[in-house]
Amino acid sequence: MLKPLGDRVVIETQDEEEKTVGGIVLANNAKEKPQTGKVVAVGDGKVLDNGNTLKPSVKEGDTIIFDKYAGTSVDYDGKSYLVLHDKDIVAIIE
Amino acid sequence: MLKPLGDRVVIETQDEEEKTVGGIVLANNAKEKPQTGKVVAVGDGKVLDNGNTLKPSVKEGDTIIFDKYAGTSVDYDGKSYLVLHDKDIVAIIE
Amino acid sequence: MLKPLGDRVVIETQDEEEKTVGGIVLANNAKEKPQTGKVVAVGDGKVLDNGNTLKPSVKEGDTIIFDKYAGTSVDYDGKSYLVLHDKDIVAIIE
Amino acid sequence: MLKPLGDRVVIETQDEEEKTVGGIVLANNAKEKPQTGKVVAVGDGKVLDNGNTLKPSVKEGDTIIFDKYAGTSVDYDGKSYLVLHDKDIVAIIE
Amino acid sequence: MLKPLGDRVVIETQDEEEKTVGGIVLANNAKEKPQTGKVVAVGDGKVLDNGNTLKPSVKEGDTIIFDKYAGTSVDYDGKSYLVLHDKDIVAIIE
Amino acid sequence: MLKPLGDRVVIETQDEEEKTVGGIVLANNAKEKPQTGKVVAVGDGKVLDNGNTLKPSVKEGDTIIFDKYAGTSVDYDGKSYLVLHDKDIVAIIE
Amino acid sequence: MLKPLGDRVVIETQDEEEKTVGGIVLANNAKEKPQTGKVVAVGDGKVLDNGNTLKPSVKEGDTIIFDKYAGTSVDYDGKSYLVLHDKDIVAIIE
Repeated sequence: MLKPLGDRVVIETQDEEEKTVGGIVLANNAKEKPQTGKVVAVGDGKVLDNGNTLKPSVKEGDTIIFDKYAGTSVDYDGKSYLVLHDKDIVAIIE
Repeated sequence: MLKPLGDRVVIETQDEEEKTVGGIVLANNAKEKPQTGKVVAVGDGKVLDNGNTLKPSVKEGDTIIFDKYAGTSVDYDGKSYLVLHDKDIVAIIE
Repeated sequence: MLKPLGDRVVIETQDEEEKTVGGIVLANNAKEKPQTGKVVAVGDGKVLDNGNTLKPSVKEGDTIIFDKYAGTSVDYDGKSYLVLHDKDIVAIIE
Repeated sequence: MLKPLGDRVVIETQDEEEKTVGGIVLANNAKEKPQTGKVVAVGDGKVLDNGNTLKPSVKEGDTIIFDKYAGTSVDYDGKSYLVLHDKDIVAIIE
Repeated sequence: MLKPLGDRVVIETQDEEEKTVGGIVLANNAKEKPQTGKVVAVGDGKVLDNGNTLKPSVKEGDTIIFDKYAGTSVDYDGKSYLVLHDKDIVAIIE
Repeated sequence: MLKPLGDRVVIETQDEEEKTVGGIVLANNAKEKPQTGKVVAVGDGKVLDNGNTLKPSVKEGDTIIFDKYAGTSVDYDGKSYLVLHDKDIVAIIE
Repeated sequence: MLKPLGDRVVIETQDEEEKTVGGIVLANNAKEKPQTGKVVAVGDGKVLDNGNTLKPSVKEGDTIIFDKYAGTSVDYDGKSYLVLHDKDIVAIIE
C-alpha cells in the first residue's frame, strides 16, 4: 500500500476522453485543463509553523478535480497513481 | 455539485462581448483585462498560520470582476465554470 | 457601484498630458513614470497573519500618485477606472 | 557511517529497470518519474521558527518513493547513496 | 504638498556632476552608483506583522546616499522629486 | 585566524581525486557532486526570528560532505579554505 | 561622516593585488572571490519582526572578508568606501 507523506494525496486518475472527429484523435490545446480523479490514500497533513497539523481537505473515496500539470505519477503494484499536494486539488465533485 | 477547496470560488463567467466593426470581430489587444462573473460556490476559506480560517470575501450570487488570466476552467455537467482564488477577485459589482 | 476587495482601491485616472511640439505628440520614454488619480472607492483592507485588518492608507476623494504600470483597468457603467493595490500608491497630493 | 544533517535522509536507491526491446535500452522520456529506495540513515530533523524540531517522517528500513531529480548522490565506502530532503519523499510503500 | 505613504521618503536629488574632459561629457559606466539627495518628506512608516509601525530611519532635512536605480521620479509643482523606500537609503551624511 | 559569521563554517577541502586513464585527467561530468572537507572553524549560529540563536550542526574537526557548488573560497595565510553555510552541509562522516 | 542605515556596514576596501607574470597583469578568472576590508562605520542593526533590533556582527576596526560582488561603492570626501549588508560579510580575520 502507498502511504503519502505530509499534505500529499494519492489518486486514481480519470483522464478526460480525447475528442475524436471521424476517428482522428484531436490534439489537446495548450490551455491548462483540470482532470478528475478518485482519492485512494491521504497523508497525515502539513505541519504548520506553530506545530499543529493541517489535515488535507479531502478524504478517501472523494472524486476531485485537480490542476492538469500538478503531481507526480507513481506506478505501484501494476497500477498507475498520481500523488498530489493538497493545494493542487481544485474542487470536490459532490 | 462542485465544492471548491480553501480560498477558491467557482463562478459562471460572462465574457465581454467582442467589439465588432461592420461585422468584423476585432482582436483583443495584449493588455490584461478583467472579466465579470457570477459566484456559484464558495470554499471554506484559507487556513492562516495561526490556525484560524479566513473566509473568502464574496458570497454566492455576487457579480464580480476578476483578472482575465486568473483561474482554472472546469467543465462540469455540461457547463463551463471558472475556479478562482479569492485573491484574484478584483471587485464586487453592487 | 464597484466595491474593491482587500487592500484594493478604485481610482479615476488622470493621465499626464502628452507633451507636444508643434502639434506632434512626443512618445514617452521608457522610464517608469507615476500618474495621478482620484480615489473613488476603498476596500476593507488586508487581513494580517494575526487576524487584524490593515486598512488602506487613502480615503475617498484623495488625489494620489501611483506607479504607472500598476493596477488593473476596469470599464464599468461607461467609465474607465483603475483598481490598485494599496502598496502601489506612492504618495498623496495634499 | 554517514550521519545526514537536519531534515535529510540517506537512502540506497533502487533504480527502475530500463525497459529494453530486443536488447536495446530504451531512453527514458522526459517526464518526471519517482524512484524507490530504502532508508539507511535519518537526520535529527528541521528546526522550526519556534525552536522545536520537526523529525523526518520516515525511519530506517522504510521503502520510499521519491522525486527522481531530488537529492545529492554521495559515494561512501564503495557504495552509492542518495541524500534527500524529507520534503522530496513522496510516499512510503507499506 | 506630497505626503509619501508607508515606508516611503520624498527627496530632492542631487545628481553627481558628470565628469567632462575638454568639454565632452563622459558617459557613465555601467556600475551601480549611489547618489545623494535631501529628504523633504517622510511617510508614517511600515506596518509590521505584529501591528506595530516601523518609522523610516531618516528625517526631513537629512542628506542621504541612495542606490542609483531605486525609487520613482515624481514631477510636482514644477519640481522633480524622487520617492524612495526606506530600505533603498544606504547611509546618512552627517 | 578566520572567524566565520552567523551560520557559516570554515573547512579545509579535500577534493576528490580526478580519475585518470593512462595519465590523462578525465573531465568531470556536469552532475552535481558532493565533496568532503574538515571543519576548522564554526560561526556562532543563525539568529532566529524569535531572537534565539541556532548553532551550526557541526563542530571543529568533523569530516563533512557538502554540495560541490556551495560556498566561497578564501585564501588566508597561504592556505585555501572554503566558507560554507550550515545548510549546505549534507552529512557528517563518522 | 557616513552613517550607514539598518544592517549596513561601511568599509575601506583592500583589493587583492593582481598577480603579474613578467609585468603583465593577469586577468581575474570568473570565480567568485572574497575580498578584505576594514570596518569604518556600523549601522544600528536590522529590526526583526518582533520589534527587536539585531546588531551587525562586526565592529569598527575589524578586518573582514566579504563576497566580491556584494555592496554599493560610495565616494565621500575624496575617498572610496564600500557599503555592505551584514549578511555579505563572510568572516572576521583575527
